[in-house]
Amino acid sequence: MHGWTGRIVIIDLTDSRITQTKSDTAILHSFIGGRGLGVKLYCDAIHPGIYPLAPENILIFATGPLTGTASPMSGRHVMVSKSPLTGTIFDSSSGGFFGKELKFAGIDALIIKGKAKQPVYISIINDDIDILPAGKLWGENVRSCTHKLSPQGHVACIGRAGERLVTIANVMNDYFHACGRGGLGAVMGSKNLKAVVVKGDQRPAIADEEGFEKARQDALRLIKAGPVASKGLSTYGTSALVNLMNYMKILPTRNFQNSEFGGADRVSGEFIKEHYDIKGHACYNCIIACKHIIKSGALEGHEIPEYETLWAYGPDSNNADMDDIIRANRLCNDYGIDTISSGSTIAAYAEIMNEDITELSELVKKIGENEGLGKELGKGSKALSGSYGKDVAMHAKGLELPGYDPRGVLGMALAYATSNRGGCHLRAYMVAPEILGKPKKIDRLTFSGKAGLVQIFQNEMASLDSLVLCKFASFAVSEEEFANLLSSATGIDYSTEEFLRCGERIWNLERLFNIRAGFTRKDDTLPERFFGSGGINRVEFERTLDEYYHFRGWDENGIPTEEKLRELNL
Amino acid sequence: MHGWTGRIVIIDLTDSRITQTKSDTAILHSFIGGRGLGVKLYCDAIHPGIYPLAPENILIFATGPLTGTASPMSGRHVMVSKSPLTGTIFDSSSGGFFGKELKFAGIDALIIKGKAKQPVYISIINDDIDILPAGKLWGENVRSCTHKLSPQGHVACIGRAGERLVTIANVMNDYFHACGRGGLGAVMGSKNLKAVVVKGDQRPAIADEEGFEKARQDALRLIKAGPVASKGLSTYGTSALVNLMNYMKILPTRNFQNSEFGGADRVSGEFIKEHYDIKGHACYNCIIACKHIIKSGALEGHEIPEYETLWAYGPDSNNADMDDIIRANRLCNDYGIDTISSGSTIAAYAEIMNEDITELSELVKKIGENEGLGKELGKGSKALSGSYGKDVAMHAKGLELPGYDPRGVLGMALAYATSNRGGCHLRAYMVAPEILGKPKKIDRLTFSGKAGLVQIFQNEMASLDSLVLCKFASFAVSEEEFANLLSSATGIDYSTEEFLRCGERIWNLERLFNIRAGFTRKDDTLPERFFGSGGINRVEFERTLDEYYHFRGWDENGIPTEEKLRELNL
Repeated sequence: MHGWTGRIVIIDLTDSRITQTKSDTAILHSFIGGRGLGVKLYCDAIHPGIYPLAPENILIFATGPLTGTASPMSGRHVMVSKSPLTGTIFDSSSGGFFGKELKFAGIDALIIKGKAKQPVYISIINDDIDILPAGKLWGENVRSCTHKLSPQGHVACIGRAGERLVTIANVMNDYFHACGRGGLGAVMGSKNLKAVVVKGDQRPAIADEEGFEKARQDALRLIKAGPVASKGLSTYGTSALVNLMNYMKILPTRNFQNSEFGGADRVSGEFIKEHYDIKGHACYNCIIACKHIIKSGALEGHEIPEYETLWAYGPDSNNADMDDIIRANRLCNDYGIDTISSGSTIAAYAEIMNEDITELSELVKKIGENEGLGKELGKGSKALSGSYGKDVAMHAKGLELPGYDPRGVLGMALAYATSNRGGCHLRAYMVAPEILGKPKKIDRLTFSGKAGLVQIFQNEMASLDSLVLCKFASFAVSEEEFANLLSSATGIDYSTEEFLRCGERIWNLERLFNIRAGFTRKDDTLPERFFGSGGINRVEFERTLDEYYHFRGWDENGIPTEEKLRELNL
Repeated sequence: MHGWTGRIVIIDLTDSRITQTKSDTAILHSFIGGRGLGVKLYCDAIHPGIYPLAPENILIFATGPLTGTASPMSGRHVMVSKSPLTGTIFDSSSGGFFGKELKFAGIDALIIKGKAKQPVYISIINDDIDILPAGKLWGENVRSCTHKLSPQGHVACIGRAGERLVTIANVMNDYFHACGRGGLGAVMGSKNLKAVVVKGDQRPAIADEEGFEKARQDALRLIKAGPVASKGLSTYGTSALVNLMNYMKILPTRNFQNSEFGGADRVSGEFIKEHYDIKGHACYNCIIACKHIIKSGALEGHEIPEYETLWAYGPDSNNADMDDIIRANRLCNDYGIDTISSGSTIAAYAEIMNEDITELSELVKKIGENEGLGKELGKGSKALSGSYGKDVAMHAKGLELPGYDPRGVLGMALAYATSNRGGCHLRAYMVAPEILGKPKKIDRLTFSGKAGLVQIFQNEMASLDSLVLCKFASFAVSEEEFANLLSSATGIDYSTEEFLRCGERIWNLERLFNIRAGFTRKDDTLPERFFGSGGINRVEFERTLDEYYHFRGWDENGIPTEEKLRELNL
């Protein structure tokens, strides 16, 4: 088998049983790998009504046909389960090196079932797979746990937040890369699974080496030529967005009560560049190196936060103290807490209390320890909002929105509302055309054409998440090159259309799961705050949603029609 | 002044008066140049009801702020008038070197008024401008006329077709580059103007040399990295499309009676590559060189036809004889006849007669000479169809459709219908996303999102036509780089949004002209053949048209609202 490894490993923690099966080639061809494979395996195994933290739930790690290959940005893996935060099916992908290593160990998917009696970790060295006692690792945070396990291989683990089943807990790999957002860290914690450490030495087989090299060069040339990836992201990382969002007046401030922040410049990429001595950090096979680490000074070794974190702990929390944000980010990474959800929930709490939060790091610790006020905040903004009876949760389907005010980016508004994992900017990556004008500039202030485009971007992102490649590639590389990489790696001929069709298939399968889990059209919406005077016109929004359903081949309630499912072989 | 020259030359042929004025800077800033400037000057001067071949009509040659600069693909100029074929306002742009030379002569726009008593040509050598007797040049075809005038400079002229007021006559420059489609050659002929020959030596001034060089390098890097421009077009020219269109089953065959052609391979780019010894030919400052010339053999010196010509004289005319098509193309270029319109009208005639046309070259000559059957064919397919009482004209607003079956490319269908110069693939360049997947692959078989996208592409193309740059740049270069080139050349700061807003302004002004000329919603349509069973769903089409109007800010009859016009300062 080429591209794929053909091996699925199933670990049942309840009875410590390790089995493996061959990957079903029909499923691989139709769902590609990564997110698609994980979602398909998940849906085939689990009833949508399951309680996410029940032992009967499963947690999947998946690699894609391009993971670990020489393709640019190919160090990624995906996790899939049902989210304790949103109640939807949930996939989350992460960069770094863990995914590449899992692939080198010969694994398409690793399925974790059941619940260990005592805390354990899983060790994978090629074909040698063991369930080992976590011992004193349980109770440790991410940096320390990773440090201790890293001699054995690349590590994905939870921090104290995941152990304590904090609803917004991440699974972290390679120290500070996160499978974030939906609380999959809590799912992992609920299984008494502290970590997976993996070492492999089997390079993925490539079907057509010459064709693959050509496709790889095509992609590399485009990435180098494109200004966003080759310049902006390399120099500033995503922090370059802060000043731009503020200039466009779509930088959500004080829990989306405003969309411009006086202190934006002090939490911007430009500020970082000037005031910190930083070096780039690249994931496996990436020429961009968008992450940055502080090289010297008081915060030496600290990570420079991503845009979303800068925003959530900065403008959204009415805070312009960069050192403070860097420290809070470091704590989140160490506890394994999602920065958007925690920052946004803190901002919602500040609005409820009508006061600014000054002790950010203290709050992060409390969330991680799941104690005191942290216990409330760790459940996310929707739960917080409910318990205070105040409508201050800036979320969609329970997932906190990221840092792009939907009132000023209408495609993004539709993307938040229709996202099947909740308020997320990565499902339909509308940041690219609406904000950065890549690959094509479109008007962010109209719903014109957005129903169709959001759908196209959603399908493409589902396909990309299945390869698995980084979304940043899509600023410069188009579907043709992705399909060529996939075809030459696997030896299966994917046209551009078929490549995108796989994404549509995945999206529809996820939708079906959510519908069966109880989600309806009513959930495809945004907080009240965004509608009405000065905001989004509700009639236009609903009409665009109608149009989106229509073009998706769904009925007026957003349920996929029989015809559409037949067409997609679902 | 930077980028622009600031000079408009007005030549009244009726009384041989040559005057010049300064370009209005407010107009330049708002309409950019080229198409935008030409359309604005035309609309300010002419009543929409004018008869296109009347002496009172005017004919404009315009350059843009990037014409003749070091920007890639900057050798283009635009012609604007009212079309005798469509009755709409009509602009047409052409590559080669004439545009660059006109710019080097210091001209933003050359306005031709009136009608000379005897045939004349215009000579421009920088500031020396003369109206000279055409003498024996009148009666000569394009090659010979160009050859005789070329010692004096770069030549734009009409062939015998234009002299004879053939409704589908082109203006040709640099031997075989055409301002084609709308019969502007007949407008030129109606003025007794045989040619314009121009020589200049004033390089355009650049406001910010360093910024311009950076923007130029950005654009070049992207063009070189992109596969369509750097590989496909360089190797095959647009002929690469023949086999692709056939494979996609959207290659219109026998006057759109079918969409697949058995002999496609024999009129394909691959066939040309194998059977002819060819060399590339580049326009001014172009690294692609999409045109090809035969280097040796019986057809030495002949041009390889563009895709549209290969299609119109090939599949659409049920003809797979490549030598035959090459000869017909050569004759069209020499007489100055539009290849799409003539080929398509011949195909319509073949359908009326229910027989294949064998003597293509003979028919082209007759069209050029405006005699016999050629007299009927030279009026275009709509007139032909009318005179035979058969509904066989494959046109929109009187302009023959190009070679992409709208039943299989629905964004293109909407683009044909809403194009303000009639059935044209260049107004909204939907070939890029729907067929070539650049910059992003979208589903060609749905109207999903097309209303919005067609509008975006129409606006962008209007802006590009105003710079003036070649549309092929847009496969790889995005609005950001175009705006940077424009800003650094002129010293006027154009954001990406403002750059596109100019295109929207131009589009709306053209629409206003057409409405005042009598066009209504009923004209925003396609031939009956394309609707119904196996074709386009009329309800969906009309709904998409409604949506298109809505998002354009037009009323349900397609008339721009007061509010929209105010917003655009129109």
